[in-house]
Amino acid sequence: MLTGNSTLLLHLGDPTHSFKAPMIYNPWFAHAGIDACVVPLGVRATEFAAEFGLLMKATNVRGALVTMPHKVTVLDLVDEVRPAAAIAGAANAVRVEPGGRLVADMFDGEGFVRGMRRNGRPPQGLSALVVGSGGVGSAIAASLAAAGVSRIAVFDTRAAAMQGLADRLRSHHPALEVQTGISDPTGFDVVVNATPMGMNPGDPMPVAVDRLAPGTFVGEVVMTTAITPFLQAARQRGCTTQVGTDMLFEQIPAYLEFFGFTPLPTPAQLREHAQLAA
Amino acid sequence: MLTGNSTLLLHLGDPTHSFKAPMIYNPWFAHAGIDACVVPLGVRATEFAAEFGLLMKATNVRGALVTMPHKVTVLDLVDEVRPAAAIAGAANAVRVEPGGRLVADMFDGEGFVRGMRRNGRPPQGLSALVVGSGGVGSAIAASLAAAGVSRIAVFDTRAAAMQGLADRLRSHHPALEVQTGISDPTGFDVVVNATPMGMNPGDPMPVAVDRLAPGTFVGEVVMTTAITPFLQAARQRGCTTQVGTDMLFEQIPAYLEFFGFTPLPTPAQLREHAQLAA
Repeated sequence: MLTGNSTLLLHLGDPTHSFKAPMIYNPWFAHAGIDACVVPLGVRATEFAAEFGLLMKATNVRGALVTMPHKVTVLDLVDEVRPAAAIAGAANAVRVEPGGRLVADMFDGEGFVRGMRRNGRPPQGLSALVVGSGGVGSAIAASLAAAGVSRIAVFDTRAAAMQGLADRLRSHHPALEVQTGISDPTGFDVVVNATPMGMNPGDPMPVAVDRLAPGTFVGEVVMTTAITPFLQAARQRGCTTQVGTDMLFEQIPAYLEFFGFTPLPTPAQLREHAQLAA
Repeated sequence: MLTGNSTLLLHLGDPTHSFKAPMIYNPWFAHAGIDACVVPLGVRATEFAAEFGLLMKATNVRGALVTMPHKVTVLDLVDEVRPAAAIAGAANAVRVEPGGRLVADMFDGEGFVRGMRRNGRPPQGLSALVVGSGGVGSAIAASLAAAGVSRIAVFDTRAAAMQGLADRLRSHHPALEVQTGISDPTGFDVVVNATPMGMNPGDPMPVAVDRLAPGTFVGEVVMTTAITPFLQAARQRGCTTQVGTDMLFEQIPAYLEFFGFTPLPTPAQLREHAQLAA
């Protein structure tokens, strides 16, 4: 029950129609008796820079969930950018601290890594190939690096995006072995599709699936289909797989902790209460 | 269930703690199957001018409910000020029209007049004394004038506020007899307390209740107590009375019509579904 005493998290993006967070967070808040609400607000890119700081000054706003097209531009509008967001070059959460200081972080990668741990494959010491160097791929690479992988390869057909990500990884993790230009999954313990390939029927595979070794941990970011053709092929090869929505549901407890809400749910509790359309 | 497809009405004021609209509108929207939500947003006076226009450009916002301390300043931030708002010198609703044009109106007075009609006393041809020339008193006076009272007296201990209201009434309703400086209820068909007197125990009476004639229609704007000492005294004199929340619940269908929501509720339906704290 939204009242004038409720705490708001503004969910900022344009368009708003595909937003999932309100239907995951708000049923959880209601179930847990937390007087808070995720409110979708469709702010256009042309207005975002002027409006963001003002929105964060509202008396009942604790922060923002930031999505397309603002994940990159928001970095210039905050006081502190946490390492995961700095390496990703993008943020999806901004917290208002006492006194109004704004702190940006990025939880896509954290969600992916938490999913790996829950799915029985902690990243420490592993080698990983991340295909796609956009916002979500960069975030996953950053979190894999922070979680202690020994070697990471990043790949993108857009060479500048790939190289920029590799440079930021090397800068923040000098001891990490960072490779570029490799899309062959041979020899990697972890292979991640962080491209949109798999959203539409007939999309090509993000990597050569016939080179996936059994036992490889294969992760996906596409959420429109649970078992994408890529994950289906990986399963047929004997790989352990992680679906796109695992990353989503795993990152929400991290978000809630960042914003200071308690109690924290498990991803299973979030899935139980979520009211996403079928 | 708030989603990225929902239409928002932003409820703008500071502080937000005493807001009632979310707990009246939102249960009605849920009951009626209207995918809309009133969202309280605590915008400070220092940020309002810069922020208001930007908020009204959000893709999922249809308008704003405007309350203290922004009811006067909002008039300078819109494209059109409707007569009730112009006479009141304040607005409590702003609609975003196609193309982004902003139209401000004031419904406090409309709520009061609708209450009179429902309570069996249409204002046409009556004489009225409105004590208090602030925002709500001005709005009530404006709506009584528009509803066809033949004579209106406005009273306020702040002479400039009283005189300003009288001037605006005369300007918009040249045929109306407008008086100032009279607080004696003798000879008036309608007497309205539009001051805060009655909110706190021991407040003086807004008018000399021993001069209220039986049959006078006596209205109240104070909502913290249903039957204020003023209304209690008026009832003992044999007057017909209207409580403060009548104005509130009567104006909401007018608001909803202004914003283009259907179906429209009756005030009784709104009261039935409202989730106001006891």
